[in-house]
Amino acid sequence: MLLRSWIESANAPDHPFPLNNLPCGVFSTTGEEPRCGVAIGDYVLDVSSLEETGGLSLPGGPLLDVPFWNELMEAGPQAWAALRNRLTEVLAEGADDRAVVEPHLVPRAEVVLHMPFLVSEYTDFYAGRHHATNVGTMFRGAENALPPNWLHIPIGYNGRASSVVVSGTPVRRPWGQVKGPDHAAPAFQPSRRFDIELELGAVVGTPSDGPVTVAEADAMIFGYVLLNDWSARDIQAWEYQPLGPFQAKATATTISPWIVMKAALEPFRCSTPPREVPLLPHLQEPGPMLYDIALEVALQPECGVEAVIARTNYAEMYYSAAQQLAHHTTSGCPMNTGDLLGSGTISGPTKDSRGSLLELSWGGKEPIAIAGGTRTFIEDNDTLSLRGGCRGDGYMIGFGDCVGKVLPALADPYAR
Amino acid sequence: MLLRSWIESANAPDHPFPLNNLPCGVFSTTGEEPRCGVAIGDYVLDVSSLEETGGLSLPGGPLLDVPFWNELMEAGPQAWAALRNRLTEVLAEGADDRAVVEPHLVPRAEVVLHMPFLVSEYTDFYAGRHHATNVGTMFRGAENALPPNWLHIPIGYNGRASSVVVSGTPVRRPWGQVKGPDHAAPAFQPSRRFDIELELGAVVGTPSDGPVTVAEADAMIFGYVLLNDWSARDIQAWEYQPLGPFQAKATATTISPWIVMKAALEPFRCSTPPREVPLLPHLQEPGPMLYDIALEVALQPECGVEAVIARTNYAEMYYSAAQQLAHHTTSGCPMNTGDLLGSGTISGPTKDSRGSLLELSWGGKEPIAIAGGTRTFIEDNDTLSLRGGCRGDGYMIGFGDCVGKVLPALADPYAR
Repeated sequence: MLLRSWIESANAPDHPFPLNNLPCGVFSTTGEEPRCGVAIGDYVLDVSSLEETGGLSLPGGPLLDVPFWNELMEAGPQAWAALRNRLTEVLAEGADDRAVVEPHLVPRAEVVLHMPFLVSEYTDFYAGRHHATNVGTMFRGAENALPPNWLHIPIGYNGRASSVVVSGTPVRRPWGQVKGPDHAAPAFQPSRRFDIELELGAVVGTPSDGPVTVAEADAMIFGYVLLNDWSARDIQAWEYQPLGPFQAKATATTISPWIVMKAALEPFRCSTPPREVPLLPHLQEPGPMLYDIALEVALQPECGVEAVIARTNYAEMYYSAAQQLAHHTTSGCPMNTGDLLGSGTISGPTKDSRGSLLELSWGGKEPIAIAGGTRTFIEDNDTLSLRGGCRGDGYMIGFGDCVGKVLPALADPYAR
Repeated sequence: MLLRSWIESANAPDHPFPLNNLPCGVFSTTGEEPRCGVAIGDYVLDVSSLEETGGLSLPGGPLLDVPFWNELMEAGPQAWAALRNRLTEVLAEGADDRAVVEPHLVPRAEVVLHMPFLVSEYTDFYAGRHHATNVGTMFRGAENALPPNWLHIPIGYNGRASSVVVSGTPVRRPWGQVKGPDHAAPAFQPSRRFDIELELGAVVGTPSDGPVTVAEADAMIFGYVLLNDWSARDIQAWEYQPLGPFQAKATATTISPWIVMKAALEPFRCSTPPREVPLLPHLQEPGPMLYDIALEVALQPECGVEAVIARTNYAEMYYSAAQQLAHHTTSGCPMNTGDLLGSGTISGPTKDSRGSLLELSWGGKEPIAIAGGTRTFIEDNDTLSLRGGCRGDGYMIGFGDCVGKVLPALADPYAR
């Protein structure tokens, strides 16, 4: 049910940022330093200044006197709840403390958004069954599509935290070493098969010291963002054996600017699909740990009309972020505040629900139609947007859009 | 030639820390906070206090007022040279400033060593040809030993920075999911094939913004450490397809406590071996970028005599750290101060020069002899030590030992 706010715009049934949501970002206005903010209706509530002036008191605070959310994340679930409780109280319709809050509201149209947290390390998973089956079929044939381990562990690899950028950051088409099956020798050239991956990113709030259960892992997660794992398929095909993707995935990873807290997603929890083979006990879910989040991918050519090229749902995943995080700790690997876990590409069972151009165009063999043309992979100056939201009873929980425009490759990457 | 110091112990021809070396560490004495120190003979020079009291002035300083070397590293080659020049001056035989320095010397026997730098991100390569051939032969057969891309790019994967620990830290045998070829289903159990990898770690000093040449990459490197990439072979075999090693390599990565600065290694530069196929121009070395560093691995059982189980040399590598770092930036991947690059396992051409137990015991099939027994993989309470050094004209450049004792697996990893 919609929680009504005295900020009228937040009460519109399709608004992404009602009082139920309260996602966490970092923003700046002209000439000011970045600071922590929470989206509410058409405004950003400057919670850094609210805390500084005494309108918000958090256990162990101040926690928002830095331009990132890591300190609050590290403070743990009690602090997270304290933040939500206080903001829900003061922003609610009829709140007594309206005058305390009002001076700290900034119109969202006037702000620039920054990275909402410091990424400690970044891990990317491969937990979408439709995606793994599609890619496996293309790369290894239908018989070997799903690797033997896939139904037993959430397969993942370590990505590059330094590559993570906030929505709106342009992405430069990368150079890389490639070699087609028909070529005698590899070449160093701009990627010709540059692609997106539609993912959800889980943001680790509290650290681990030793293996954690799936329930403990779920409790460690602070929130979620949309994530685009930009991928150069031609570089990936040549480099990925035997140690996995490396430079193909290191150009950029774009995240949406607002972290949607786990608490806002509670009404939308749903279970992973039935297991084809039972998981070992340490990876079994004690309850529903996916979320019903409708997702879409849009492609906007430089001159032309935007096309929605895929629609899918996070509920399609075979493994939840909690299962992935639990698996991540099995070896004793220490997990830290600010670790980011990509879900893996979220593809549905149908052709129009695939979360990458690799799958949508079936390896480039079946171009997809967009207004005024077709696409196999990304063309220069295309803008790719991921969008997502949960539809509740009379309200939405929106994720901020995750947008990136692909700029042409440098003519000479070594020119200075 | 030995640079003579007024600290007599530093002048012994086999001492690892003569005036020529001056490696960078972080140390503490009883009841004191960790701070930056430089090893000289049997002493540690407390450079944090030397800088604080005005005995050391660095461009852009203070740079050593934190318990890690990242600030100096980030300050760049001019600051690195300023440090070495000043220390070489004040520690030299006959130095005028002896009285300035003497109060800041601490006997090395009295210090505890800590992580010398904050690891930003950790990448592990696979650049030893003998190692890649050995492992490839075991995993994929002699015909497919070397992957098709191996002679064209330094293959690497992102590791887990949070797993990096300093020498002396005990390492707990990990649990993990494993499945032997004869087993119907996987099991979750302590690793039975826990192993070392003898590597050299390159420490990135200055950041990159876009692709860098091999010469630029070499200039970015601050120094080198010994590195043990602990590896659970049974976990690795089950998980590594198709996205590479993950939990098998995430338990711990041990580094030696002293960063040997690149400047100390200059006299020992040597070239990579002849190319079997020419590299693309952006990966070619403009000069010798490996180093002649003699290396050994010792295994000490809980009760028994230490055995040196391998002797090899860093000059065996096919790719240098500069080539690896250049490749790492080809996609535009931003590299940062404190990034750590593992060389890959350093194996020589002979049986007794292999840098892992996997190779030494040929996948466990040929146990190696140690005093009073044999080994295939690591047994509980074994202590593994990596050692290394360069032999100059009348002096050594020693790396501090890289040591880890393997503790038995937890009986129940989820017990609290």
